[in-house]
Amino acid sequence: MDILKVGNLRICTQGESMKVKDVGERALVSTIHRLQAIVPMGYLGIGDDAAYVPPSAEGWLISQDMLVEDVHFRWDWVTPEQLGEKAVCVNVSDIAAMGGIPKAILTSIAVPGEFEMGDIEALYRGMAKALDRYGAVLLGGDTVFSPDRMTLDVSIVGHPGSKGPILLSGAKPGDRLFVTGRLGAAYAGYILLSHNVSWPSTSLQYRSVLQAHLAPVARVEAGTKLGLLAHAMTDISDGLVSELKAMARFGGIGVKIEADRIPIDQATKMVAAEYGKDPIDFALYGGEDYELLAAIPPSRVNEAESLCLGCGVAITEIGVVTDTLGIHIVREEEEIAVDERKGFHHFAVDRDEP
Amino acid sequence: MDILKVGNLRICTQGESMKVKDVGERALVSTIHRLQAIVPMGYLGIGDDAAYVPPSAEGWLISQDMLVEDVHFRWDWVTPEQLGEKAVCVNVSDIAAMGGIPKAILTSIAVPGEFEMGDIEALYRGMAKALDRYGAVLLGGDTVFSPDRMTLDVSIVGHPGSKGPILLSGAKPGDRLFVTGRLGAAYAGYILLSHNVSWPSTSLQYRSVLQAHLAPVARVEAGTKLGLLAHAMTDISDGLVSELKAMARFGGIGVKIEADRIPIDQATKMVAAEYGKDPIDFALYGGEDYELLAAIPPSRVNEAESLCLGCGVAITEIGVVTDTLGIHIVREEEEIAVDERKGFHHFAVDRDEP
Repeated sequence: MDILKVGNLRICTQGESMKVKDVGERALVSTIHRLQAIVPMGYLGIGDDAAYVPPSAEGWLISQDMLVEDVHFRWDWVTPEQLGEKAVCVNVSDIAAMGGIPKAILTSIAVPGEFEMGDIEALYRGMAKALDRYGAVLLGGDTVFSPDRMTLDVSIVGHPGSKGPILLSGAKPGDRLFVTGRLGAAYAGYILLSHNVSWPSTSLQYRSVLQAHLAPVARVEAGTKLGLLAHAMTDISDGLVSELKAMARFGGIGVKIEADRIPIDQATKMVAAEYGKDPIDFALYGGEDYELLAAIPPSRVNEAESLCLGCGVAITEIGVVTDTLGIHIVREEEEIAVDERKGFHHFAVDRDEP
Repeated sequence: MDILKVGNLRICTQGESMKVKDVGERALVSTIHRLQAIVPMGYLGIGDDAAYVPPSAEGWLISQDMLVEDVHFRWDWVTPEQLGEKAVCVNVSDIAAMGGIPKAILTSIAVPGEFEMGDIEALYRGMAKALDRYGAVLLGGDTVFSPDRMTLDVSIVGHPGSKGPILLSGAKPGDRLFVTGRLGAAYAGYILLSHNVSWPSTSLQYRSVLQAHLAPVARVEAGTKLGLLAHAMTDISDGLVSELKAMARFGGIGVKIEADRIPIDQATKMVAAEYGKDPIDFALYGGEDYELLAAIPPSRVNEAESLCLGCGVAITEIGVVTDTLGIHIVREEEEIAVDERKGFHHFAVDRDEP
C-alpha cells in the first residue's frame, strides 16, 4: 500500500489552485492522511505495508466496488464530496446486504495529474462524512497516477450480525418478500441528470431523486434488524428484477411479485410522468437504489415490520417466494413479461433506458 | 460486488476471437468464476454481496494495490498472464512485508470493451497460478467497464505471523539491516523494455532481469522466518533508499548502508554496463524488486541467516541501524549523497532514470 509510505506534510491552502501533478504523490497522500479519522484501538491503519484488523469471533465480511469516471460517474453531474460519500455508501451497502456492520475501508484511487488538490480534499471529506455516519474508518489503500480518468476502488470489511452472513440463497417457499424504503428514485435522478437538470435543483422533488442517485444511503441498521429474521437478503444495486433473479437462481426457488405494491415515491412518479416513462420500470430495472430485498418467513413478518419501524425505515411487502422456479411479476392481476434488455449493465456504454 | 451476482456460463472457445463488449458483463464474470479455485472450508466466496473470512485468533492483515495501464504496465511489454501473476505478487508482498501469510484476494477490474476474452482468461490464469504458489484464493471482487485503459485493483487479506504484524517502525540502534535476494534487477528489466528488448529475450541474462520486472516473486516464506526475529520489516517496492527513509522516519532512528555490500546480480550489472549506468543506482532507486528489508538484532543474525537459507533465500547484511536520524550511504569508504530526484514516483509520467 503506497498510501502508507509517506511523511512530510504539505498543507494545501484553500482558495489556491493546485493540481495533483504539481504537488506530487507524497503531498497527495499526506493530504489524504490528514483527512483520516483516528484508527480504533487494536486496528493498524496508515503507516505500514498493510493495515490490520483485530480478531473477530464472528469472522469478517469483505467486499470491493470500483467506480470509473464516465462509466459510473461524471464530473458534470456529481461533486467530489458526493462521489466520496457514494463510493463509501455502495460498499457499505454490500455489508448491510449480508446483515453486517461496516468497520473499515481501504481506498485505491487513480488520479489524473490535472485534478485539483482541493477536489481531492473534498472527495476524501465526503468519504470521511459517510464513514462517520456508518461508524467505520479509512485504514489505508493505494494512491496512483491515472493518464486521464479517475478510478476509485473501495474495499470494505465488516462484522457479520449475530446470525452470521445472510446469503442470497436460503429463501424458502412461502417466505414474504420485503423491500426497504422506495425504489426507482435513483433512476429518476439519472433521467434528470441526463436531461441536464443538475444538482442542486430548485425543485424539492427533483432534489429528492437527484439525491437518491448522487448521494444514496446504505441501510445498515435495517440490515442488521432484517438479518435477525431473513432467510435470504441482498441489496438492490442493479434493479429489483436483477436481484430477484439472483435470489431465485441461487436459492433454487421462484418469486412472485405484485408490481403495484412496489413502493415508489411521488417525486419518482412525477419525473417518470414528465418524461413519458413508466415509474414501475424505474423500480424494476433502474438500479442504484441501495435498498434491501429480504425473504422473511411469514411467522416473523410482524416482528420485521416493527424492528424496521423502530429504526425509522419503512418496509413493504411486494411478493412471495414460490416453489416454481423463475420470476413472475403480476400487474393489475395480469402477469407481465420480464424484459431482459431493460436490465442495468455496466458494460452497456449507451445504457438502455427502462 | 458485481462479480457475485451472475449465473449462466458461456464458454469462451479457444481460438475464436471474442471481445468483452460482445459477450457482456455476465459472460465475463462467468469466465472469471470458472477460473477460480475451490474456496476453503469456512470461507464464503463468489456468490453473494460480500465474501467472508472466518475468525482468526491473530486478526487479519489487509492491503490493496492498484495497477493502471500505461502507468504501471504496458501491453506491448507484459503478457496478460504475467500481469495477473504480478498483480497478485505485489499484493502478497505487502503481506510478506508484515511477516504474514496471504489467504485470499478480491479483484476489481475495469476492462475496455475491445479487450479479448482470451486475454481475460489468460490474466485470471496468471492470477490463479500465483495464488496457487502462495496458497491463497480469489474470493470475489468487482468487474466493470472501462472506456479505454485497463485498471486492476487487488485487495488481499492474510494472517499475521506468531509475533503479530511486523511494522516499519521498531528498528533499534545496533540492529543489522538485511535484504533478501538481489536488488536492481527489476529496474534493469525496465531499462531493457524501454529500449525495445521484449520478453522472452534470447539471452539468459536479459531473460533474468525481464522476469524480475514482469513476473516478480514475493518473499512469503522468508518473511515469516524473518518476522520471528526482526524488529522492523518492509518490502522493497519503491527502491531501497525510499524504504530505508521510511524505516528511519517511522522508527525515529537512522540507517547507515554500505553500498558495495548491496547484492546485485551479474545480469543486472551487465545491463547497467551496456547502457552506461551505475547498477548501484538501480538498487538504490529502481523499485519493484519486492525483496524484503529487515532490521535484525545482532544476537539473532546467525539464526536469521540459517532460517532463510533453510527456505532457499539468500540474505545479505547491507548496514546497521544508528541513533543518528537520517540515512547515510557509504561507498568505497566515502559517504555518497542521497539523490531525492532519483526516487521512483508513480506520478512522474516520464519516470526519472536512476
